[in-house]
Amino acid sequence: MRTSVLLIAHGSRRAASNDEIRALTQRLREQADGRFYAIDCAFLELAVPLIPDGIQAMIDQGAQRVIVLPYFLAAGRHISEDIPAQVGIKKNQHPHIKIDIVPYLGTAEQIPGLLLSLIA
Amino acid sequence: MRTSVLLIAHGSRRAASNDEIRALTQRLREQADGRFYAIDCAFLELAVPLIPDGIQAMIDQGAQRVIVLPYFLAAGRHISEDIPAQVGIKKNQHPHIKIDIVPYLGTAEQIPGLLLSLIA
Repeated sequence: MRTSVLLIAHGSRRAASNDEIRALTQRLREQADGRFYAIDCAFLELAVPLIPDGIQAMIDQGAQRVIVLPYFLAAGRHISEDIPAQVGIKKNQHPHIKIDIVPYLGTAEQIPGLLLSLIA
Repeated sequence: MRTSVLLIAHGSRRAASNDEIRALTQRLREQADGRFYAIDCAFLELAVPLIPDGIQAMIDQGAQRVIVLPYFLAAGRHISEDIPAQVGIKKNQHPHIKIDIVPYLGTAEQIPGLLLSLIA
């Protein structure tokens, strides 16, 4: 199955912050090393593409499954409501495409170790 | 040297989000396994303790050095201006205490691998 990954960030008025996300997306592509059909990023607000457009682009490229990967640290309203609502729009439009939201970055068990590594 | 670590999060109106940070702080303590004099958290806004109060508490407990560890993903205004400004207040008040801000979480090289692990 052609599975694409869409990294979701909040989006910022600062272009440099959005560019940081695009650079991270490129590092993700390099590390995934062809494991996915496509890897790209989209934004909840303040930058483009927005989430529905990002999902649509992946479907237009031929993805049969889209994994939505939230680059967020805490489970606020964005995680519980806003991202599922925007993803839901595309799910309804494309019932034959599998679209899944995986747990947000802050849930990763490796975070404490990673924080300690920043001190060393 | 008695070195304490202060994890800094943005702070949220949602109590559950702030509690997530407190739980993470506890996991940090467990993983650090006594390597630091104290480990605690503070917030930029919307929750307590605020950053200056968090630093002051560590100094009052006897810390000789405070490492400020920003739990942020992107280098926005909070990283470039707000956190350094609040930390600067305590640096000026306590010139004999070493207070350092280390790079924010989003700079960690392990982030792409960690994101890919969330998909698996």
